[in-house]
Amino acid sequence: MRGEAYKAAGVDRDAAARAKKLIARHARTTFTSGVVGDIGFFGSLFQVKGFQDPVLVSHTDGVGTKLKIAHWMDSYETVGMDVVNHCINDIFTCAARPLFFLDYIGTGKVVPERVERLAAGMAQACREAGCALIGGETAELPGLYQGDDFDLVGFVVGAVERNKIIDGSAIQEGDVLLGIPSSGLHTNGYSLVRRVFHLDTDQRPLRKHYADLGCTLGEALIAPHRCYYPLLEPALPYIKGMAHITGGGFLENVPRILPKGLSARFHTGAWEVPPIFRLIQQAGDVGEREMFRVFNMGIGMVVACEPGKETTGQAQVPEARVIGEIIATGDQDSVILV
Amino acid sequence: MRGEAYKAAGVDRDAAARAKKLIARHARTTFTSGVVGDIGFFGSLFQVKGFQDPVLVSHTDGVGTKLKIAHWMDSYETVGMDVVNHCINDIFTCAARPLFFLDYIGTGKVVPERVERLAAGMAQACREAGCALIGGETAELPGLYQGDDFDLVGFVVGAVERNKIIDGSAIQEGDVLLGIPSSGLHTNGYSLVRRVFHLDTDQRPLRKHYADLGCTLGEALIAPHRCYYPLLEPALPYIKGMAHITGGGFLENVPRILPKGLSARFHTGAWEVPPIFRLIQQAGDVGEREMFRVFNMGIGMVVACEPGKETTGQAQVPEARVIGEIIATGDQDSVILV
Repeated sequence: MRGEAYKAAGVDRDAAARAKKLIARHARTTFTSGVVGDIGFFGSLFQVKGFQDPVLVSHTDGVGTKLKIAHWMDSYETVGMDVVNHCINDIFTCAARPLFFLDYIGTGKVVPERVERLAAGMAQACREAGCALIGGETAELPGLYQGDDFDLVGFVVGAVERNKIIDGSAIQEGDVLLGIPSSGLHTNGYSLVRRVFHLDTDQRPLRKHYADLGCTLGEALIAPHRCYYPLLEPALPYIKGMAHITGGGFLENVPRILPKGLSARFHTGAWEVPPIFRLIQQAGDVGEREMFRVFNMGIGMVVACEPGKETTGQAQVPEARVIGEIIATGDQDSVILV
Repeated sequence: MRGEAYKAAGVDRDAAARAKKLIARHARTTFTSGVVGDIGFFGSLFQVKGFQDPVLVSHTDGVGTKLKIAHWMDSYETVGMDVVNHCINDIFTCAARPLFFLDYIGTGKVVPERVERLAAGMAQACREAGCALIGGETAELPGLYQGDDFDLVGFVVGAVERNKIIDGSAIQEGDVLLGIPSSGLHTNGYSLVRRVFHLDTDQRPLRKHYADLGCTLGEALIAPHRCYYPLLEPALPYIKGMAHITGGGFLENVPRILPKGLSARFHTGAWEVPPIFRLIQQAGDVGEREMFRVFNMGIGMVVACEPGKETTGQAQVPEARVIGEIIATGDQDSVILV
């Protein structure tokens, strides 16, 4: 085994070094004035600037099994954008501005060109949000990931002035709930989608064109998770709480911002659920309530604001529409769908 | 498929919720005064205190396929400690004090009790380093991870005073290189180990007792990655550079702190390579140079300091021993093993 033992064991350090160089090139296009030094040291250095009394807000998340769909569709850039935008949206619910991002790629075999395409997508999303991609790790783990499988995880750190943190605690009875449209499934519900369309055994349904969707099923499924930070940042003065509709849908995410004793009542007729969700629901015969527990159903962010302020908010964000209101909790759940 | 569609597709949100509660209990035992709020919001909040002009230092890393050995040995707490200590050591090379940590667990099936054992190990290592475990994500990804496979990724953020950053740039010809012992393989080289002992097909060799090791092969392999931060922190005034010996061993990690034109010459006879490495080398007939490219060979951290200061350094860290020196680079590599 002399000389090449590690490579024979499935770990190609030369491929890893090549991937690292390709990633670094994309990462440098995202560097902001806070970045200290360069990519490649043991730690990634960043200086927080422009805040009086900053609180750091961090989050980690992955893309889930949307990665499998992306692989079948040969679409790596889009999942790179997904992981960044998902993380940024999560810290933005506290009103945090994203500062820097690190990624982790776990894979059975490092294919430098694929890693580069993931990095290109991450770098694009980072640039669009003014967030620096300052580090990461690409781990070749033969035997842990099978075939072309890989996992993609993101970590973001942002900051918010201590007296400007939004956490929903100001929400009151009578407040208005605005819905901001999603760009598709975002990064949730893909295991259910894979099962409904039997994609693990046959990927041909991905290529089927649907008039309702205006594209193929696969194209609809890989639409990148949109970033709400640039869109909603100007409306922050009018916002009392934001719930990012991710895993768990409306039913599990909206309660995270509700003060005790308050419920959120949504008028599901107030917006049209996009065709991709109805297609999945019909194909899988999934109940309406479960759909709302798994998918975002066309609303990626729920925003609570004072009544009367919603028009100002809507002026800032023309896509926003009133979809519900805050009521006192009676004997009912904290999320009510009517 | 009504009612239980997502569960049938392999995603059990109740197990996820149970795991989340168990993790939160352990995480709260690590909370320091910087933590703002509690576990479970979209973002994790932390206020940096006690610094004049802080630079944030972040890092992400995983445990690699040591996870497979840990699973075979039913040892989850130790890999929890591994991921935290690996990350903390990496940012400590810049002299950063760890502030907070987030984890990502990707798995085919969430087993709440296993997740809790990982969290218990992470929380223990965090407490020992004064680092707050403030968030994380446990993702159930059926079809992406097979059987009992899972990945464990850590993300740490620390801080260092801007004028106290250590990056090796002060290293000069004639400086002394100290080696600080490792506690075993730490988190690198496990794919090679799995191949050498054919562990993927038969795990019985893990139970074999070796007199040299004073324990079984499996016990030696799961020894947790030690944390160098509490040990070396008092010696920081004497330290010009630190290289954490992880993936790539001496040959790839030491060059990361060397200024241009300087090489590191190590006297491999200056310390005894621990028996576990010799056992792997013999069993796999692995060349000496490759061993130094894959494993830490008994030295987990290489510390550069001014000549004459090494005795002060050694007084602070009695385990430290002189293992090499900085020389001008001639026609040779930047790392020389003699």
